Amino acid sequence: MGQPQQPDEAEAGAAVEKPDGARPPLGIGMVGYAFMGAAHSQGWRTVGRVFDLPRRPVLAAVCGRDGQAVRAAADRLGWAAAETDWRALITRDDVDLVDICTPGDSHAEIALAALAAGKHVLCEKPLANTVEEAEAMTEAAEAAAARGQVAMVGFNYRRVPATSLARKMVAEGRLGALRHVRVTYLQDWLVDPQFPLTWRLRKETAGSGALGDLGAHIVDLAQYLVGEPVVGVSALTETFVRDRPLPGGPTSGLSAVSANGVGQVTVDDAAVFTGRFASGALASFEATRYATGRKNVLRIELNGEHGSLAFDLERLNELEYHDHREPGTHAGFRRILVTEPDHPYLEAWWPPGHGLGYEHSFVHQARDLVTAIAEGSAPVPSFADGLQVQRVLAAVEESAAKNSVYTPIPS
Amino acid sequence: MGQPQQPDEAEAGAAVEKPDGARPPLGIGMVGYAFMGAAHSQGWRTVGRVFDLPRRPVLAAVCGRDGQAVRAAADRLGWAAAETDWRALITRDDVDLVDICTPGDSHAEIALAALAAGKHVLCEKPLANTVEEAEAMTEAAEAAAARGQVAMVGFNYRRVPATSLARKMVAEGRLGALRHVRVTYLQDWLVDPQFPLTWRLRKETAGSGALGDLGAHIVDLAQYLVGEPVVGVSALTETFVRDRPLPGGPTSGLSAVSANGVGQVTVDDAAVFTGRFASGALASFEATRYATGRKNVLRIELNGEHGSLAFDLERLNELEYHDHREPGTHAGFRRILVTEPDHPYLEAWWPPGHGLGYEHSFVHQARDLVTAIAEGSAPVPSFADGLQVQRVLAAVEESAAKNSVYTPIPS
Amino acid sequence: MGQPQQPDEAEAGAAVEKPDGARPPLGIGMVGYAFMGAAHSQGWRTVGRVFDLPRRPVLAAVCGRDGQAVRAAADRLGWAAAETDWRALITRDDVDLVDICTPGDSHAEIALAALAAGKHVLCEKPLANTVEEAEAMTEAAEAAAARGQVAMVGFNYRRVPATSLARKMVAEGRLGALRHVRVTYLQDWLVDPQFPLTWRLRKETAGSGALGDLGAHIVDLAQYLVGEPVVGVSALTETFVRDRPLPGGPTSGLSAVSANGVGQVTVDDAAVFTGRFASGALASFEATRYATGRKNVLRIELNGEHGSLAFDLERLNELEYHDHREPGTHAGFRRILVTEPDHPYLEAWWPPGHGLGYEHSFVHQARDLVTAIAEGSAPVPSFADGLQVQRVLAAVEESAAKNSVYTPIPS
Amino acid sequence: MGQPQQPDEAEAGAAVEKPDGARPPLGIGMVGYAFMGAAHSQGWRTVGRVFDLPRRPVLAAVCGRDGQAVRAAADRLGWAAAETDWRALITRDDVDLVDICTPGDSHAEIALAALAAGKHVLCEKPLANTVEEAEAMTEAAEAAAARGQVAMVGFNYRRVPATSLARKMVAEGRLGALRHVRVTYLQDWLVDPQFPLTWRLRKETAGSGALGDLGAHIVDLAQYLVGEPVVGVSALTETFVRDRPLPGGPTSGLSAVSANGVGQVTVDDAAVFTGRFASGALASFEATRYATGRKNVLRIELNGEHGSLAFDLERLNELEYHDHREPGTHAGFRRILVTEPDHPYLEAWWPPGHGLGYEHSFVHQARDLVTAIAEGSAPVPSFADGLQVQRVLAAVEESAAKNSVYTPIPS
Repeated sequence: MGQPQQPDEAEAGAAVEKPDGARPPLGIGMVGYAFMGAAHSQGWRTVGRVFDLPRRPVLAAVCGRDGQAVRAAADRLGWAAAETDWRALITRDDVDLVDICTPGDSHAEIALAALAAGKHVLCEKPLANTVEEAEAMTEAAEAAAARGQVAMVGFNYRRVPATSLARKMVAEGRLGALRHVRVTYLQDWLVDPQFPLTWRLRKETAGSGALGDLGAHIVDLAQYLVGEPVVGVSALTETFVRDRPLPGGPTSGLSAVSANGVGQVTVDDAAVFTGRFASGALASFEATRYATGRKNVLRIELNGEHGSLAFDLERLNELEYHDHREPGTHAGFRRILVTEPDHPYLEAWWPPGHGLGYEHSFVHQARDLVTAIAEGSAPVPSFADGLQVQRVLAAVEESAAKNSVYTPIPS
Repeated sequence: MGQPQQPDEAEAGAAVEKPDGARPPLGIGMVGYAFMGAAHSQGWRTVGRVFDLPRRPVLAAVCGRDGQAVRAAADRLGWAAAETDWRALITRDDVDLVDICTPGDSHAEIALAALAAGKHVLCEKPLANTVEEAEAMTEAAEAAAARGQVAMVGFNYRRVPATSLARKMVAEGRLGALRHVRVTYLQDWLVDPQFPLTWRLRKETAGSGALGDLGAHIVDLAQYLVGEPVVGVSALTETFVRDRPLPGGPTSGLSAVSANGVGQVTVDDAAVFTGRFASGALASFEATRYATGRKNVLRIELNGEHGSLAFDLERLNELEYHDHREPGTHAGFRRILVTEPDHPYLEAWWPPGHGLGYEHSFVHQARDLVTAIAEGSAPVPSFADGLQVQRVLAAVEESAAKNSVYTPIPS
Repeated sequence: MGQPQQPDEAEAGAAVEKPDGARPPLGIGMVGYAFMGAAHSQGWRTVGRVFDLPRRPVLAAVCGRDGQAVRAAADRLGWAAAETDWRALITRDDVDLVDICTPGDSHAEIALAALAAGKHVLCEKPLANTVEEAEAMTEAAEAAAARGQVAMVGFNYRRVPATSLARKMVAEGRLGALRHVRVTYLQDWLVDPQFPLTWRLRKETAGSGALGDLGAHIVDLAQYLVGEPVVGVSALTETFVRDRPLPGGPTSGLSAVSANGVGQVTVDDAAVFTGRFASGALASFEATRYATGRKNVLRIELNGEHGSLAFDLERLNELEYHDHREPGTHAGFRRILVTEPDHPYLEAWWPPGHGLGYEHSFVHQARDLVTAIAEGSAPVPSFADGLQVQRVLAAVEESAAKNSVYTPIPS
Repeated sequence: MGQPQQPDEAEAGAAVEKPDGARPPLGIGMVGYAFMGAAHSQGWRTVGRVFDLPRRPVLAAVCGRDGQAVRAAADRLGWAAAETDWRALITRDDVDLVDICTPGDSHAEIALAALAAGKHVLCEKPLANTVEEAEAMTEAAEAAAARGQVAMVGFNYRRVPATSLARKMVAEGRLGALRHVRVTYLQDWLVDPQFPLTWRLRKETAGSGALGDLGAHIVDLAQYLVGEPVVGVSALTETFVRDRPLPGGPTSGLSAVSANGVGQVTVDDAAVFTGRFASGALASFEATRYATGRKNVLRIELNGEHGSLAFDLERLNELEYHDHREPGTHAGFRRILVTEPDHPYLEAWWPPGHGLGYEHSFVHQARDLVTAIAEGSAPVPSFADGLQVQRVLAAVEESAAKNSVYTPIPS
């Protein structure tokens, strides 16, 4: 233990307005059960135990191609049923929401079908592998919205309490006019040239490399925090290691790309780009899987005329804030431990100083999505937000292909 | 997303040796459902979804005095049944393990009864409010062990991956002979003199103040990391604010202690003490609820002849390590991000850099306890370990009462 | 005190091979005595008291246009004589080395004349305001070298012990093939729109804004650490505040640029650019005077296949190092406190842990320059190095003017 | 360069009210020229070049026993003359101030004689090796004060800008009533058991070990920052390595203590102690030379009801501050970069963000001492302050010898 508590904490629970049984269920059907599927499952299992929700999420069914594996996953992750065909999953009566956790190349097909089947949709990022797909998905989502369905894209890093707090502070005008946005997403899992050629390293499955995987996150987070779109970019991309060993096993789906056990990397290893926001702030972006020793450095800093904010995903319970309106004598970047009851999402969790982890962003995502569904409101980030990110990524690729020329983003 | 993965991650789940149905259930009955109860519930709900356990924990029943409140808590936290009398709970057939999450004054009675009823027991820390109670509990636990029952005390901070790694490194001899152990547990929730007089501030319920609440954690963690007992202490304690407003409401159980809405604090606000470990290392301890701005700074540093380690609970995914056997030119404290697959408990969780939170220590505690029960092994920290901590705390109080004189700890 | 020392430290001094009197003097004549002049003066006064030099620097004369002010400065800063005409200074018999600390628009004229007068030259950065001037200076320096004169440009940040150590580690191959170079120089002194229009904000005096002032430092430092030139850049620049109040007083020399007390900023406020190094590493640069709360964040990080290094001028006694060849279990960025006797320049200073400050880079610069002069070797950074930086800056401006198109650097 | 400046900085110097020639000289005579002597020399050489002083320090003479070595030191460090007998030094007409930089066993004798000779005195810390000596010195200093002489003890860490700022903030009431003071001084230069037996490890020369060397600093700094004396302590001390090799060479003066090249350590290696301040704050102190990897961690933290401050000598340009009167939502420990013009001592130095080093504390000490002498005011820390520290250290030793019993400090 060791923490503050309410006087009567030894006995009384949080006020519960209605018992679980009185809340209408919301059936979830999830496609894919690897890393993202596990994270989403933890979100769905936990959200109703921590937050007081208007509807009760039910882990109805999970879907994967290998019957034995998906049944084992269902058993382990807590899903009531297993399916091997996502077309069957999306038509189940007990599924109200389809949660898409597959690689990007199948997002559009599944999401379009699920929306057509009358389901709500949560789709992992990036929304799609191409702008065209993302446009079709957005159009479908808007049509479905008229029928009362919601669609959301899974940029979970908006739901870390520290980034939510940062957005709130920007929206309150605490930074004033923004001058600089500086964002990196640094990982290092490709540094070893013997790391195998996974689906993430092939254009046909992943769409792009660090750009779509990491760059999508930082473009979305930057636009979310700033509250404005990026309007143009100038970019360099690079593939440092062009040939990699094939992974073993029949499930890799990559046997066609190679002879003699080596295959070609067809996506970027890293992307660095600069850009401008609508109101004139300069931006600098970097996404890479080659930043040796950096495991998950999604770091963003905003500098405005009245103050600055900085966040690093490796220390996700903290937010750095400099208030420039204070006297300089005692001013400095302060480390806000984002664990106070009045911080976003925190009232439902632990006492101050008892930090959250990576997976909590998925719990919060589930909370906001369930609430939006129950309230009939439009959740963000919407598919249109995902499309905007896709357009930025496409402009990055276009700029990189055209000698880094500044490339405007169509709005 | 944004992380490394196995080549085939889009499809295959982790190897699951047997389905849930094939694992014998382990019924849990929990007494108390406030902060600790919520944290333990999250541990019990999650552990089997993340780790491959030999038995399947079942949240059988939760117990509290207020019937309506405990039923709401059961519903919210995921317990199948609710009880209002712990004596009823501990005799339920579907309860194999009694998890005690009440204030310290009821630990001994419940634990002794539960052991007598043939149940396994997990008891929150501190083990008891007095050495005498702790001795009785330890004796009962040892007798029960002969009947195949296990008993464990809930020093959950041993199960943060970074502290587990630290223990492993000490045990491997990486630090050599230890010279210094420096530990603080700093919180600040009593700084405001208007914070009300909760049960934690009365000797009859809490036993002691910062000492038993925070000091118990740091004494246990230090002894665990060092691998030796503290053999003597010299202490100062202080109560900075002696009168506090009574909390409102009938559940506080404190109405007797006061007239006119103000009651007396009868425990310590802070304790500072020095000590010696068996092999000669010097120790310095500080536990306080008055370290303004420090929310949860359980910080421990060990200095040995070959190296040093440092940990801070506010950054629980990190461990600082200095290797003194390296050439000084390139040596320095390194920040190990304890999120690698070969770090303790991490294989079951997320990719490198995707940190865990406070509550994961309870998931890990549940894992180790379930494993010990299934294997018939004795879990640590045992009640004897809890008793040893209690003896150190008693010596601290004795020294503080006797002009700080160095007070040996009986072994 | 409080530090390690040699056994006999209470008595013995460091071995001194020859007394001051036996070292030939080296007369210094300095032009300009503002911030840079004060820093250089501290370097010249101190260097012979700390390092064992082959020649003895003598602060012969300082030069400025205002006779009374320059005499006061000479008196305060420790210069033997004062001059009001730099042409007189550079022909003094007691001046062997001309140290140019004026704004960039006078560097070329003074340096060329000083070299023609047979003097050694130390020129503050940036070497010049244009590539043409820098070319002429480099040509003159190379001709003078044949006559035994040396010329050096004052990129003092190469002489911080931590950056010198970093260079050594890169040169030893500790990072392997470099993938990323990430550099910022962040200040915030222009955030206030009422800050006046100094000479630094006018193109005719300063050449450029943040680019020449801060960007020159980071381009030089990056090229120095990498050991290779930048071969091309893509850039965005911005002037956030275009009109500023004129400073008072006749000395500003800016009265011509304005009516009604307001003048135009004709240089960049900030520059962000990406680039490539010769061997393929990607680079990202940012120089700004609008990073609110950042006072002097010259931060550089290098990621290579075997390790990474990071340095921040606000913590200049530290170097972060990650060794990727270590087992991942215990690896992490370590904080090397660059204060050990075997670290660059440190043997002459204080015991470990007793850090140096900003000005020490000028002491070290003086040491290396005096040594080069005495040994007849060519000091680095040479004027050719300064010219290369100038070419990068010119390419940045060209790219920014041409829609950010990737602009190669001529070699 | 790269920094803000005044508009006219390219030309004008700081206002100088009177030239050097018009300031009466203040002759300095320094005894000892090892580490402390070198640091003091840098202070004396630099102070008049940076600060506008009422008197002009002149490095008149330095004294040491070895004639050749002291002449070399004088030459290198910039002293006009060398003496081999301190009794000769203190009677020189050109010496106004005697600066004592010898080991503690000679402080009393030299200081008493210098005061008797009518000189001002600056004495390195600890003031003396015993309370009796310190009492005699304090008495003599007070008598001399009546004759217009000043005496100061060299607790230089009061003169780091960040600690000076901290004192100012405490004095302004920003922390409110203090609850906790937590101080360590951690070094590691004795970790190696083969480090030789220097004079610092023998009681007859050093008085005590880590206690007098490091403990004196932290006791003084804590009392200075709090603004109150420590009133009692409870202590443990330890000598981890009791036998060490003798240093080579005749100058060690330790040949008598040993046969066969090994001698006994007769002082403490480490001291940990707790205490109380006059107004009730609890204190915790630790001084050690065995904190592996910690080079110079003089870290102090103060927790008060309205806020907290923390300082670490390894990052001496920074001060951490938490303001508890701010709303908790945006509160946190801020890192004040203590380099602003309105910070103590900073107006005379560099622009914001251009940090100072260890030695600057000696420049500031010299400034304050020269100013006090010119103004006829009593400088702090006085010999009485040094005596108070000595009494605390004596109480620590007494408590350690008496089973850690709480030992009051006589006032």
